[in-house]
Amino acid sequence: MDNEQQPNFRPALEGFRWDGVAYQPYKQDGSAPFKDVSRQVLFHADGLGCELRYFEVGTGGYSTLERHQHAHAVMVLRGHGECLVGAEIRSVKPLDLVSIPSWTWHQFRASEHEPLGFLCMVNVARDRPQLPTEQEVTDLKALPGVARFLEKPEHKAHRSALSI
Amino acid sequence: MDNEQQPNFRPALEGFRWDGVAYQPYKQDGSAPFKDVSRQVLFHADGLGCELRYFEVGTGGYSTLERHQHAHAVMVLRGHGECLVGAEIRSVKPLDLVSIPSWTWHQFRASEHEPLGFLCMVNVARDRPQLPTEQEVTDLKALPGVARFLEKPEHKAHRSALSI
Repeated sequence: MDNEQQPNFRPALEGFRWDGVAYQPYKQDGSAPFKDVSRQVLFHADGLGCELRYFEVGTGGYSTLERHQHAHAVMVLRGHGECLVGAEIRSVKPLDLVSIPSWTWHQFRASEHEPLGFLCMVNVARDRPQLPTEQEVTDLKALPGVARFLEKPEHKAHRSALSI
Repeated sequence: MDNEQQPNFRPALEGFRWDGVAYQPYKQDGSAPFKDVSRQVLFHADGLGCELRYFEVGTGGYSTLERHQHAHAVMVLRGHGECLVGAEIRSVKPLDLVSIPSWTWHQFRASEHEPLGFLCMVNVARDRPQLPTEQEVTDLKALPGVARFLEKPEHKAHRSALSI
């Protein structure tokens, strides 16, 4: 996909969808723990060197807890939730900015009441995410508030579902 | 400015401003024709390779008519207006996507009733914009609808103000 092959104008549709942009729900195949996440790649062009994606985490859902060499630049567009970046957990609302530095553990969680949608800018050339080891999860949970964040009811339910 | 030196969380404030982000109104110094445009650089990090900026064009205002080698990827965030990209003029609304390919004339115009605010993603390394020559303006105006677009009352008023 390249901007040169797209129309220059792609109108927004209802419900945070876009004309000419594929809606990609993530499949829960057990390779990485997450719940109810979809992706839409809004801009991808080699000439730009970067991509802009829209991710949506469904009500009560969460993204994969992961880290990688590449940085993320995030702007929330829809809903409310909480976000873990390194040792910090913050509530987020529309238009808030979140920077995810290199090699920093991060996870997004939607509230119990509405989906959490956000833009994410990344470099076109990037590495694959790493998942935490059991020891790393233990170390993260020793940080203030992180055990509560990681052990919300939905997360526990999903972990249990995965282990079936 | 680099993300590593910024807080990872920068909350949105009222009125499309952000905590820790400088508000930069463009000065009308006559070097390029535009009216009532401000810029806020939301993300700039060498590691990312790209920047995300928020531009706002005040009610009845417009950005500079220009072109350049680098591409732009735009998402409207606030208000309504019209946008010229090459030979095409389209109305735009929040969340609409606009791609501005390399060397393509473009201009954003806010409506008479509200500001037009949009995100613009660009590569960190980019060339300076070119302004059209008189002949190029004449050629653009020969395209359907472009003369009307370029000759809205505010634009004429500004040109007249500039020539005083």
